[in-house]
Amino acid sequence: MTTVSIIGAIAALLTTTAYVPQAYKTIKTRSTASLSLPTYIMLFIGTCLWEAYGLMLHDWSIIFTNLVCGLLGSVILYLKLIEKPGTDADAPAQPQ
Amino acid sequence: MTTVSIIGAIAALLTTTAYVPQAYKTIKTRSTASLSLPTYIMLFIGTCLWEAYGLMLHDWSIIFTNLVCGLLGSVILYLKLIEKPGTDADAPAQPQ
Repeated sequence: MTTVSIIGAIAALLTTTAYVPQAYKTIKTRSTASLSLPTYIMLFIGTCLWEAYGLMLHDWSIIFTNLVCGLLGSVILYLKLIEKPGTDADAPAQPQ
Repeated sequence: MTTVSIIGAIAALLTTTAYVPQAYKTIKTRSTASLSLPTYIMLFIGTCLWEAYGLMLHDWSIIFTNLVCGLLGSVILYLKLIEKPGTDADAPAQPQ
């Protein structure tokens, strides 16, 4: 592997697995008020497309990584969708 | 472009730009309680490495996308780091 491909692989690993601590926190606390719904919809669709891309290329590292992150992302998205009305943080911050 | 490369490109675009609505919401509401600090540290380092990868390959689409998303991610990370103590949502959800 060249330096460039190692940097690319570490970058891909970090940006793909970054959702693991977010999923852990969201499952543990059930707190979704600060999370953006469009972000998790985009991530869910994006992960499904990465999964399709990995399957088409028979690339097991893409298939496995996006399967794990897709499942974690789905849990975050589900908890955001069932968020109780009024607990969202869309209101602007109050002046101190 | 083949179908596979189009799917890969859309997947990359969605998972990279998914942070735009999160950054908009976080900047607007200043609410960071539900956000996971390790997630945004990993995304920040990952985006910096993607930027280095793009610069090494002179790939302007990678450079531009990660510059925008790196800046947005930095703002989210900064707002999370200056979060007031006691506003974090690490406490388990209360039974209803």
